[in-house]
Amino acid sequence: MREARRGRRGAAGAVITQLPWERVSNPYAPLEMLTPEQMEDLHDISIRILKELGIKVMGENVRDLMRKAGARVDDEGLVRLDETIVAQALSTVPRHFTLTPRNPARRVHFGGRDLVFGLVAGPPNVDDRIKGRRSGNLEDYRNFIRLAQHFNVIHMIGNQVMAPQELPANNRHLDTYFANLTLSELSFHCTAIGRGRAMDGIRMMAIARGVTLEEMAREPGVTTIISVNSPRLLDDAMGDGLIAMAEHGQPVTITPFTLMGAMTPVSLPAAMAQQNAEALFGVVLTQLVRPGTPVMYGAFTSNVDMRSGAPAFGTPENAKANVIAGQLARRYGLPYRTSNANASNAVDLQAAYETAMATWGAVMGGANLIYHAAGWLEGGLTASYEKLILDVEILQNMVEFLRPVKWDADELGFDAIRDVPAGGHFFGAAHTMARYERAFYAPMLSDWRSYENWAIAGAKDAAQRATDLWQQALAEYEEPAMDASRREELEAYVARRREEIGHDEP
Amino acid sequence: MREARRGRRGAAGAVITQLPWERVSNPYAPLEMLTPEQMEDLHDISIRILKELGIKVMGENVRDLMRKAGARVDDEGLVRLDETIVAQALSTVPRHFTLTPRNPARRVHFGGRDLVFGLVAGPPNVDDRIKGRRSGNLEDYRNFIRLAQHFNVIHMIGNQVMAPQELPANNRHLDTYFANLTLSELSFHCTAIGRGRAMDGIRMMAIARGVTLEEMAREPGVTTIISVNSPRLLDDAMGDGLIAMAEHGQPVTITPFTLMGAMTPVSLPAAMAQQNAEALFGVVLTQLVRPGTPVMYGAFTSNVDMRSGAPAFGTPENAKANVIAGQLARRYGLPYRTSNANASNAVDLQAAYETAMATWGAVMGGANLIYHAAGWLEGGLTASYEKLILDVEILQNMVEFLRPVKWDADELGFDAIRDVPAGGHFFGAAHTMARYERAFYAPMLSDWRSYENWAIAGAKDAAQRATDLWQQALAEYEEPAMDASRREELEAYVARRREEIGHDEP
Repeated sequence: MREARRGRRGAAGAVITQLPWERVSNPYAPLEMLTPEQMEDLHDISIRILKELGIKVMGENVRDLMRKAGARVDDEGLVRLDETIVAQALSTVPRHFTLTPRNPARRVHFGGRDLVFGLVAGPPNVDDRIKGRRSGNLEDYRNFIRLAQHFNVIHMIGNQVMAPQELPANNRHLDTYFANLTLSELSFHCTAIGRGRAMDGIRMMAIARGVTLEEMAREPGVTTIISVNSPRLLDDAMGDGLIAMAEHGQPVTITPFTLMGAMTPVSLPAAMAQQNAEALFGVVLTQLVRPGTPVMYGAFTSNVDMRSGAPAFGTPENAKANVIAGQLARRYGLPYRTSNANASNAVDLQAAYETAMATWGAVMGGANLIYHAAGWLEGGLTASYEKLILDVEILQNMVEFLRPVKWDADELGFDAIRDVPAGGHFFGAAHTMARYERAFYAPMLSDWRSYENWAIAGAKDAAQRATDLWQQALAEYEEPAMDASRREELEAYVARRREEIGHDEP
Repeated sequence: MREARRGRRGAAGAVITQLPWERVSNPYAPLEMLTPEQMEDLHDISIRILKELGIKVMGENVRDLMRKAGARVDDEGLVRLDETIVAQALSTVPRHFTLTPRNPARRVHFGGRDLVFGLVAGPPNVDDRIKGRRSGNLEDYRNFIRLAQHFNVIHMIGNQVMAPQELPANNRHLDTYFANLTLSELSFHCTAIGRGRAMDGIRMMAIARGVTLEEMAREPGVTTIISVNSPRLLDDAMGDGLIAMAEHGQPVTITPFTLMGAMTPVSLPAAMAQQNAEALFGVVLTQLVRPGTPVMYGAFTSNVDMRSGAPAFGTPENAKANVIAGQLARRYGLPYRTSNANASNAVDLQAAYETAMATWGAVMGGANLIYHAAGWLEGGLTASYEKLILDVEILQNMVEFLRPVKWDADELGFDAIRDVPAGGHFFGAAHTMARYERAFYAPMLSDWRSYENWAIAGAKDAAQRATDLWQQALAEYEEPAMDASRREELEAYVARRREEIGHDEP
């Protein structure tokens, strides 16, 4: 289980200490916040929402699929469906799935006790303590992919780390996919706004892996997240993106974006019921396109600041929603995706404690994918270099917390205790010397020196140390080798598609 | 359950928003990290330690009690005891107890699902961002007591918040007890180094409450923590302090101070076995003094940095130890005390994430008392004003996370969902308006404004806001009224005891 860690090279050329790449598993029973009766209440209300109120669907393709399955579609595009249709869909969803990127050693597993951490996705801005806050751009985008590749605890890439705003909006996905595939060996998330962007992601991963689309369908390599525009609205492009992914056997996550008090009622039970109805609607859709399509239950329920309407994340209500959503996902036998989000404007105490609250809620809730696990700041408006370092440290701490305790007679150590006299110490004991190098997690960001030594060394706080660390990580990063012909094929694909799409203004 | 919160007075004269004083309960099943077989392993090794290796006892009073109970005491003072003696003691310990301070409304409950948060205790230094790091002193001591009284989520006072170093070491406890009793209405922890300091605490609380020592024994008001000098050493003064407390029916916590790799073997199972043996020894002692004495299972197992030997807290190993110690305490039917500790030298990201790790481990482990819950910094060498504010925010977030979800048809909100069209919003809905003011936890430290508004307002990070908040809290603090005759009696007691003890240099 525990592989050798990268060691320190010594004082001069020390490399960053980090955990090895490993499959992370949560060995503990998830927290059950709701009683079975409360869970049935939620299910019943969700089914009533689907049956009596319906989900408004903007795309004709989706309406057609729903109609054929027996749903009622009215003139406004409201699609109403019965529990039998939901039950039928749930009977064909797989309980587990994997994503296989170009390096199969970086395969990720979803479902059961597996826990996957994804890179921040979607912000318009980027920030660090050297250059400050600025618009997202391809150079910083590429740096974040390098950091994701470098830090083993980041398991996959989400939808665009940040928007590269200098590039044309209609074809910038080609540049970000190309960066994902050439600078990292990780699976990633296609932008499924419309069919074209989804297909480009699927085809480019197939090229990078050297497989056909049929092989990709059997062993998927990319995924996407379909957002529901809560309350109860599925837009055209999202529907088409979902259909393209499902047709090609690539996994889809359905995530209603449900901020309590804004997109749902202000009460947590109502928010969970609405989220559940919207998520189940998307799950049904995936199975109508292609029964057996891997699909994940997505949750993004938090609250707004009721004084200002501003979104809040990493709140107690967000953590509760993370736990309850896990109960719902397990009820339906679906892998579960949630997020590590916070609303701080700076990489500060607030960012840290909101992140800790979100992460613990997700882990205790039995999450299989924590999206935005590394680098999210400012309610998702900024990708932050220092926040990424903070998050890597928090995630590594969590991985160590989840690692089962080694248990045998030597670890129980009666003889070691006997051999040290009362009032003595264990520093030089043979039992200590035999295992001290690997006994404890070695942090990369924490500084455990005495106050005096820390002050002499410049009294750098953890945020300042984070600035040093991301620069060092970029310096240590090594671009993974790629077969030259595959790289040329990818380049040719991007060039051809850029022509087909045409250039527009960014 | 949910009382009215103090509101904001409006933009100009806003008071700090905080939760009401309330009895906090953890409604969730604790995390069970070890299997029943592993738990038996721990118990068996602990009993072997007590029977074959023994605990070295420096005080003749404790040796006598142990001898009379059937333990074997050798020439070096090593006391060895059999499982029957442990089992007998465990048969008389209460599963629950309370502490009643001068204001009975501030009574605290230990055991079962109750969760109590204690103020930082013991540092030699104090720090804030205005005056910097300095030696502990009575003026700052008094400020911390005021803050503990002001913030409802701090439920009790620990052993001296900080050492008031300008005062004589042999009688400064009189000044700190007097501050505890006059500036707050909370229970506190006596310094049980020797019989005299313990008795002063018991007598002064009795005076403040206007009760006799017999009444105090029936309804205890103070407590103490007896540290074991791990490995396997109980010193003279600690033993006498324990005896004095137990004789007078005041609850005692037994806390082995066990840093893995230094005071215990480097492996977690061995550390837990040794901690358990040492704790059980103290539990036995309390019941030999006075069967039925309330006693709490204390845990303070963390690790050291094996490169430097420096103590580390809030680590994954510390969190695991917090969880396992809870399993042990429940096995023996004892209330469980642990800590919120971190090793950061600054109120920074590290302080926040180590604190979050320690707190979640404690809560998931079923802690009844989280000691040092507010204000601890620098591995316990500094009491920090800003850290206290950070901790109050983290504790309040935890209390809200633990609050059961309100559940009824209105909260499930089907009608509210029906009344908002697909793609609409819930901001002005009647269901929202009826409950938005109390729907969500209102933080005191988090700033959820947009980046632009936050920047215009000065871009203060959370640590800077914490500096504002502790000053505001001190300004808002109101000294609780005390009966004049009791105050005079307390003053007379302090004056008389100071004479008896004599003055020495600080």
